[in-house]
Amino acid sequence: MREVFVAGASTTAFGKYIDRPLRSLAEESVSGALADAGASPSHIEAAYFANAAAGLITGQEMIRGQTSLRATGLLGIPLVNVENACASGSTAFHLAWMAVASGWVDVAMAIGAEKLTHVDKSRTFDAFNGAVDLDEFDAATPGATRSRSLFMDLYARMARDYMARSDATVEDFARVAVKSHANAAGNPKAQYRKPITIEDVLASRTISDPLTLLMCSPIGDGAAALVLASDSGLQKLDADPVQVLAAVVLSASDDDGRGQEVVTRAANRAYAEAGIGPTDLDVVELHDAAAPAEVIVSEELGIAAPGKGAELLRSGETAIDGGIPINPSGGLLAKGHPIGATGCSQIVEIVDQLRGRCGARQVSDARIGLAENGGGWLRSGPAVATITILRRSRG
Amino acid sequence: MREVFVAGASTTAFGKYIDRPLRSLAEESVSGALADAGASPSHIEAAYFANAAAGLITGQEMIRGQTSLRATGLLGIPLVNVENACASGSTAFHLAWMAVASGWVDVAMAIGAEKLTHVDKSRTFDAFNGAVDLDEFDAATPGATRSRSLFMDLYARMARDYMARSDATVEDFARVAVKSHANAAGNPKAQYRKPITIEDVLASRTISDPLTLLMCSPIGDGAAALVLASDSGLQKLDADPVQVLAAVVLSASDDDGRGQEVVTRAANRAYAEAGIGPTDLDVVELHDAAAPAEVIVSEELGIAAPGKGAELLRSGETAIDGGIPINPSGGLLAKGHPIGATGCSQIVEIVDQLRGRCGARQVSDARIGLAENGGGWLRSGPAVATITILRRSRG
Repeated sequence: MREVFVAGASTTAFGKYIDRPLRSLAEESVSGALADAGASPSHIEAAYFANAAAGLITGQEMIRGQTSLRATGLLGIPLVNVENACASGSTAFHLAWMAVASGWVDVAMAIGAEKLTHVDKSRTFDAFNGAVDLDEFDAATPGATRSRSLFMDLYARMARDYMARSDATVEDFARVAVKSHANAAGNPKAQYRKPITIEDVLASRTISDPLTLLMCSPIGDGAAALVLASDSGLQKLDADPVQVLAAVVLSASDDDGRGQEVVTRAANRAYAEAGIGPTDLDVVELHDAAAPAEVIVSEELGIAAPGKGAELLRSGETAIDGGIPINPSGGLLAKGHPIGATGCSQIVEIVDQLRGRCGARQVSDARIGLAENGGGWLRSGPAVATITILRRSRG
Repeated sequence: MREVFVAGASTTAFGKYIDRPLRSLAEESVSGALADAGASPSHIEAAYFANAAAGLITGQEMIRGQTSLRATGLLGIPLVNVENACASGSTAFHLAWMAVASGWVDVAMAIGAEKLTHVDKSRTFDAFNGAVDLDEFDAATPGATRSRSLFMDLYARMARDYMARSDATVEDFARVAVKSHANAAGNPKAQYRKPITIEDVLASRTISDPLTLLMCSPIGDGAAALVLASDSGLQKLDADPVQVLAAVVLSASDDDGRGQEVVTRAANRAYAEAGIGPTDLDVVELHDAAAPAEVIVSEELGIAAPGKGAELLRSGETAIDGGIPINPSGGLLAKGHPIGATGCSQIVEIVDQLRGRCGARQVSDARIGLAENGGGWLRSGPAVATITILRRSRG
């Protein structure tokens, strides 16, 4: 397997674009990533397109990449449509990494794009339910109507379980949201850029106890894209590259225990591949689809000791100027969570942090970064976990 | 890139299984392929799951592989959900090939599974429309209701265009269906195993002129699975392997002209990778979603000269005892077309032909075989074409 580099990275601003079709978002991210890599469409030899919900929301299924990329100049090459729920984007990145690492192609692209807003909001909520094992859900709750907040109900249960086995409080979850919104204020691509207070978070309406509205990632639209290249691929481009040290995708196993054990397994595999450990990380983007996930995942990544995630948060260590900044972009909570785009957008943030391009939210001297992306739900935790580890190439 | 082998291959019988869930079909194909390879689930290091329509038919989207494979023992490993319309299965095969060829893993699996039947038939027809560029369709026919047979309307248009530029007649298309049904009579896994006559085909009701019911692939359910291994992977298994010479996936380009130009481009790429040409082929499975496609694709693969596909058919050369047998399995028309499963099932047939396991429909002394799988629709032809070329390992 060859060394692989991210040669180009770009994301649209996340937000509610009720009048823009999916393809418009995809096009913007592709042209941005190509420009960043100094690439033209003809350099791209294979593409992996991630989307999670368009089929259920618009009826356009099966060839979502082909229809979304028609105007980009990318058609005509090998193109694969990829899905892994909220981890679809990083799964596409994994496949693009494989295509280049294998020696098969020199330059490949991963694109994640999602349009969740629709004039009929019920379509969006129904689509989310597609990320849960519906047979399991229906068997466990016979006759029950599927909740509009099915996914957040699962996060709420995880939050309650976590509070029972740690000293974390609802105020801690509110603290995550406050930090994320403060970080997002420095991110021109974030959906919500207004600082908020703990009181604001606690006073917002309850979605699924103990989660309030401001503890849940919002509904929004967006796209992010990445150009990956081998060393010989880089010779053809004009890029400021970042090296990929690991691009791990794992599905949950029925042997996995409570919570997010699959995240720990994926992280351990990625650390081994990268030859590093959690103490080597300078910056982390992780999958805070709901606020409690940030403290829980910080433990599963080995950044916080078991049960000490909330303590680490309170200490300020995970703030942008702390020892191990988490979600400087604003995370899913404030940057936004157009689900199929999220995995790619997390990697875009890490790439830009390692290249020192993040302005007001820049982590100082970031050399190694990690993105954790989760997707779907089986039993008591995510159905998929992905870990991507990147290293600065210069300096 | 390393040499890659198919170590195990299995398909369910195709048919209408209104009472079996998707997972039941997937499980049967997985256990069959594992048994055929002499493998246990613990040998499988990565899996690629293809499905095209379950999201729109059942609402279970995003984690279709995770939910379908829970009882197989395959969870816990890297798992990617793949979609490329009717070419989803062969696209999953391509990714499994890449995973092994790259040196990343020694043993991987591709699974294609589809359940198209539903008590509410309109869901199935609506799902098919997801394979067409709906924006393009709606822009071209403003205000028009999307036909129940939208996809077959496109094939019908292609058939009419082809008749205008060749000597092919409607009787030739009927002849394809007659041959396919005769071949399927020798295939215990085929959905329709009763021989039919040209008169039967012409007398069946018109679906979209000139296509009659018996010229269109039926609606059905099924799954097929393949175990792929490197040479070192084979050492861990107990397999009768077949070598993979090429596993090409291409998307259509807006530069592609009329008809199925992308098929020709994919075939030429695959022939070059395999180091063979069309005259080296001993057996072919191709994507006859409607009967005219068999004669058209036989030209695009270079098996028949341009405009001579019907003549080759009439000559008997494409029959099982001819010089270049096409669709000995019965093809999509008679074996059936559970769309996400089709690509894998075509490859299963070629593998079994090369291993001499096909009984009444066995092609004599088959050494090199090709499977062509198409998917979706953009402009005037398929959105995706895949070509897989396999070679007998023994004898």
